[in-house]
Amino acid sequence: MKRQKAIVLLSGGLDSAVTLFYAVKKGYDCQCLVFDYGQRHKQEIKLARRIAGRAGAKVVIMKLPLPWKGSSLLDKNKAIPVNRSIKEIKKGIPSTYVPGRNTIFIAVAASFAEAIGASAVFIGAHFEDSSGYPDCRRDYLQAFGNAIRLGTKAGREKKLSLKFPLIGKDKAGIIKLGLELGVPFKLTRSCYQGLRRPCMKCDSCILRQRGFKRARIKDPALNMG
Amino acid sequence: MKRQKAIVLLSGGLDSAVTLFYAVKKGYDCQCLVFDYGQRHKQEIKLARRIAGRAGAKVVIMKLPLPWKGSSLLDKNKAIPVNRSIKEIKKGIPSTYVPGRNTIFIAVAASFAEAIGASAVFIGAHFEDSSGYPDCRRDYLQAFGNAIRLGTKAGREKKLSLKFPLIGKDKAGIIKLGLELGVPFKLTRSCYQGLRRPCMKCDSCILRQRGFKRARIKDPALNMG
Repeated sequence: MKRQKAIVLLSGGLDSAVTLFYAVKKGYDCQCLVFDYGQRHKQEIKLARRIAGRAGAKVVIMKLPLPWKGSSLLDKNKAIPVNRSIKEIKKGIPSTYVPGRNTIFIAVAASFAEAIGASAVFIGAHFEDSSGYPDCRRDYLQAFGNAIRLGTKAGREKKLSLKFPLIGKDKAGIIKLGLELGVPFKLTRSCYQGLRRPCMKCDSCILRQRGFKRARIKDPALNMG
Repeated sequence: MKRQKAIVLLSGGLDSAVTLFYAVKKGYDCQCLVFDYGQRHKQEIKLARRIAGRAGAKVVIMKLPLPWKGSSLLDKNKAIPVNRSIKEIKKGIPSTYVPGRNTIFIAVAASFAEAIGASAVFIGAHFEDSSGYPDCRRDYLQAFGNAIRLGTKAGREKKLSLKFPLIGKDKAGIIKLGLELGVPFKLTRSCYQGLRRPCMKCDSCILRQRGFKRARIKDPALNMG
């Protein structure tokens, strides 16, 4: 039997890498969609390519600069919040929020999926990001999945769906799953700053290190040159 | 009182032009978002600029080629259906359907809206296109509006919504509304073919002419040089 195709949204971060390996393990023939949208941490694009290679998946890089910025992740004149406590991180929506980012990514992925006859779009959104980012919440993903089901030919024919397998997990749970799946964590980067090494101060670095600590594993990306 | 801002999806076609003039009439300070997505009928972009100018609205042109095509509207090697009866047009989804097009357009518009503090995204999807295009149906637009409400900061704060004021109308009804609003129909183009003059054979030309006939008006675009 021919394998079903899937589009996996891949960023170079940890969550999407785990999602990719999860989809491969589920038997999907995966194509990764990577966005070059003006993010500071552009190095993640190169890493995404390598991660996809390790999973045996193809990659499409899509240039999609958002000229209106509207986020400290896109605008170098805005400061990225650092040294925040978990309590602060979990409270409210930070300046790193990119308006409508996942909505755009999923929309483009759905178009790609339908055009090549893929039956699923995978996104690595998860529970722990959901306090900060409305576009990582379960209710939103369910609503958007419903919109795709209604607004595409493939969706109407029940041949295309949106999948978010990490939504119930926290970072430690995702890391544990990734270990089981053989995800090359040392190729993943989570830092928002786009420096040569992780800053260890931004929300994303803090949540990542907390995840590895809770999973009782050392982050292999910290040993990189 | 400061006027509320809106993003209007503008294509150079008739429906989106009426939607723009409708939004202006409703008092919105409108910014038009026009996509250069690899469509055959690229001339519509230039016309969209002129239509926006007539409405006193600003324009952002966004390049967003869809490398996977998946539609006769994007792929010159595929034929655009011609000389079909209304019954044929209304039956099934034609090859001119672009996978996920409105989903991408609305997603990008929602990002833009949130970044500039606009309170509405307007799209000119309507009833008569809905038989052919799943992304012009009311149920889909309602579901996507719900996703935007849940997946953006502005939406969560009830400050951003998706509006589709033409959804209950057919072409003749839209034309009548456009006449009341002073829409410069002679600047609008509906033809899929991207020739110098409308082909008068594609589904879009046929529906447009039927609309003008039913509205008992001559299409002013046909007198253009």
